[in-house]
Amino acid sequence: MNRKINVTIYNENYHEQTMPEVREIYPEGIHHAVAAALPEQQTGVVRFATLDDHESSLSQEALDDTDVLIWWGHAKHEAVSDAVVERCAQRVLHGMGLIVLHSGHASKLMRRLLGTETHLLRWREAGERARLWTVLPGHPIAQGLPETFVVPRDETYGEPFGIPQPDELVFLTWFQGGEVFRSGCTWQRGAGKIFYLQNGHETYPVYWQPEIRRILSNAVLWACPPERQVTPDRGPGNVPPLEPAD
Amino acid sequence: MNRKINVTIYNENYHEQTMPEVREIYPEGIHHAVAAALPEQQTGVVRFATLDDHESSLSQEALDDTDVLIWWGHAKHEAVSDAVVERCAQRVLHGMGLIVLHSGHASKLMRRLLGTETHLLRWREAGERARLWTVLPGHPIAQGLPETFVVPRDETYGEPFGIPQPDELVFLTWFQGGEVFRSGCTWQRGAGKIFYLQNGHETYPVYWQPEIRRILSNAVLWACPPERQVTPDRGPGNVPPLEPAD
Amino acid sequence: MNRKINVTIYNENYHEQTMPEVREIYPEGIHHAVAAALPEQQTGVVRFATLDDHESSLSQEALDDTDVLIWWGHAKHEAVSDAVVERCAQRVLHGMGLIVLHSGHASKLMRRLLGTETHLLRWREAGERARLWTVLPGHPIAQGLPETFVVPRDETYGEPFGIPQPDELVFLTWFQGGEVFRSGCTWQRGAGKIFYLQNGHETYPVYWQPEIRRILSNAVLWACPPERQVTPDRGPGNVPPLEPAD
Amino acid sequence: MNRKINVTIYNENYHEQTMPEVREIYPEGIHHAVAAALPEQQTGVVRFATLDDHESSLSQEALDDTDVLIWWGHAKHEAVSDAVVERCAQRVLHGMGLIVLHSGHASKLMRRLLGTETHLLRWREAGERARLWTVLPGHPIAQGLPETFVVPRDETYGEPFGIPQPDELVFLTWFQGGEVFRSGCTWQRGAGKIFYLQNGHETYPVYWQPEIRRILSNAVLWACPPERQVTPDRGPGNVPPLEPAD
Repeated sequence: MNRKINVTIYNENYHEQTMPEVREIYPEGIHHAVAAALPEQQTGVVRFATLDDHESSLSQEALDDTDVLIWWGHAKHEAVSDAVVERCAQRVLHGMGLIVLHSGHASKLMRRLLGTETHLLRWREAGERARLWTVLPGHPIAQGLPETFVVPRDETYGEPFGIPQPDELVFLTWFQGGEVFRSGCTWQRGAGKIFYLQNGHETYPVYWQPEIRRILSNAVLWACPPERQVTPDRGPGNVPPLEPAD
Repeated sequence: MNRKINVTIYNENYHEQTMPEVREIYPEGIHHAVAAALPEQQTGVVRFATLDDHESSLSQEALDDTDVLIWWGHAKHEAVSDAVVERCAQRVLHGMGLIVLHSGHASKLMRRLLGTETHLLRWREAGERARLWTVLPGHPIAQGLPETFVVPRDETYGEPFGIPQPDELVFLTWFQGGEVFRSGCTWQRGAGKIFYLQNGHETYPVYWQPEIRRILSNAVLWACPPERQVTPDRGPGNVPPLEPAD
Repeated sequence: MNRKINVTIYNENYHEQTMPEVREIYPEGIHHAVAAALPEQQTGVVRFATLDDHESSLSQEALDDTDVLIWWGHAKHEAVSDAVVERCAQRVLHGMGLIVLHSGHASKLMRRLLGTETHLLRWREAGERARLWTVLPGHPIAQGLPETFVVPRDETYGEPFGIPQPDELVFLTWFQGGEVFRSGCTWQRGAGKIFYLQNGHETYPVYWQPEIRRILSNAVLWACPPERQVTPDRGPGNVPPLEPAD
Repeated sequence: MNRKINVTIYNENYHEQTMPEVREIYPEGIHHAVAAALPEQQTGVVRFATLDDHESSLSQEALDDTDVLIWWGHAKHEAVSDAVVERCAQRVLHGMGLIVLHSGHASKLMRRLLGTETHLLRWREAGERARLWTVLPGHPIAQGLPETFVVPRDETYGEPFGIPQPDELVFLTWFQGGEVFRSGCTWQRGAGKIFYLQNGHETYPVYWQPEIRRILSNAVLWACPPERQVTPDRGPGNVPPLEPAD
């Protein structure tokens, strides 16, 4: 792929406004920390979207010019406009990559695209140690990562996680308190590739950790469609036969 | 499984009212032809639901007492209540089996559960010959069926079909006019099993054909959950650690 | 399914002869402990096979009369006859269920059927606590099991595990020492269903634990083919056309 | 990926020696026609291997320097050395891409890696029209291809095909005589990606057809591992705990 990858990063940007400890970790917001992890050489236009401006920053025009959308949301999923969710979902089905981070598992967009109760899981804010394991070593998203590495403190998520079985299970996480979690999962939906990564609670500097940044960078390269195709809507097709009847 | 399987059959029952040739094939409606194909020994309570009565016939109480829901719809998908669709979807996610027939691929319920543009496919009402092929010979839904058999006349459906990759591809169909179709597909969503069968246009007596009836009967046995479990809603769980911290 | 399930249990039966502490836990051998976990009502003929007698006890005749084969091996994989392995593999491909236990992941039979380096994983005999998690709650093999339960002491296995991605991931295990493992996996190969369960090191009484016994019982019911079919070998088929040429 | 892709093409090169009509279509052998379809810009070293020289041309050294191996065989599968097959299989498991063409479905290598009776299928040499359908439109191997296209004459293959369910089903083929076939399938095995393409009987000029050439080119780009990694053999790992015991 020779063209540059256009990335749009949505962050609800709420905790940064209301919790000083989050602002300390992410002074410019989680979206800017994520942006700093993008693959430098291959990244083209980077756009930001937050809850406050999402109706305009996630406009049809912006999405049509986006190859990969990254989504971080937590406390304000219900405040996201249904129309924007549907617009994003359609773009994924027509080829835009989607990377959903951490509590984004409960976002309207993830639930819309996967159809199951992706908000269901066990959780605990206890600053526990998380140990990620690479389950599918040859996968592009695992490239350059060790078999295992530690995230010193993160929110704990535990199974059972209400997702459809992933097409590919790339990472599993062990948590100090006894839980395991399918922490790195892929699905193809329509022409679009989806990757979910569990890590990144707002009160820990997870997105500054090199291994997590490598995963983000790898995932953007993986999720980018071969061509930026803005497929027009089409209804079911009533078509003539291709082959002659007897 | 010793208990009987309770089955609810939804048929929009519209063409039967408006097209004499359909009424001739299915004098009591498609739902009754489907009911006549259920596995006799194992079937318990059979309920019927049509568009006219679906808000009451697909009540929470009825669904809670249903093991497998069968869905046939075509011209009136949009007239189905969103609340009923959500009620059905939740029951599937909590274990109720779902069998979607023919044009039901474009139903709100199928789209809600699979998340993709399942209404997208090629089609043609040309009374072509369809030849089904068993792709996964050991599957319970294929039990007792030959490697291949002909449906003499049916509506033609063709790829690409806007579904997520099925968990299991059981049947493929060859059509006279040059199309192929993933005509028998399964997915697990939450605790529920879903089976889609392509066959059954209203103007041909497809549901009276023995092989198709065997598929319906097999599918009901396959889709039935081990226990009829009416799982209460639960939110994401905030839980204490199971293992001691260091 | 009304007929009874015929089960054959292979146990290499080596540690029982050489290690008093194993004989204390399994005085009649692991195979008899496993047999005692079979579903009472549905079980028909139970056959035993050990390394010493496996060429006769796993005869073609015995396998042809077997619905589900259970395999426990550890130290003596290479001593198993290639001909017997191929015989078993063919029966699985033609419909016999297969349940592979613990170190059986490195058996010739598992490697033959899955094609990957299934012997590769991390391991440690440290008597650590293992915590199993049900990842696919609606699956028949998980029926009646809690979301999580503890095996007080077992051998530790860790990812990356050299298996092809399972068709269904039913259980994950958390280990005290920091590992996670895909401990309950299914694959369909040919017409046969395969289930792998990680638990059961010979020096701990794992197969006497009620939850593990429930998994064994569930797995036998799940793996049993709908019909005991002894499919004759057939070569690729040179066949005439089914449809007329133009 | 900035480095060039090294490709090795195995062709048993038997029909070219014995059948003048094959030599007419492929004067330099099928391997050279395939080589001419490789992605020009991204291809590095191209190596050829035939049955006559395969023990040396598929040496460990050659394979260690290969990113993607392409395999065409038909009449002489059994003449391929078991040691070479195992060498190739190990390289695939450690990351080398593999593209298996046409009758290669029955090769020792395909059977070794997939574990099932991949030689089983229906077939007929009748010069029928084959119509390929793209089932997974967003897949890299389908890039630039139409929804459907015709191969004017090829050997007919039909289901049931004895493969494990593919990880991704990319193409389906409709045959004039009534068969359907899963003609473009992917699997990941170990760190390696495998693609099977049905087309290419030796008596028809299939590998000169632009759409088939595009598939070959796409498949090489898709199958190439992110890094050319020559992983040393390793046994199961006995490892100390990562986390402290209670």
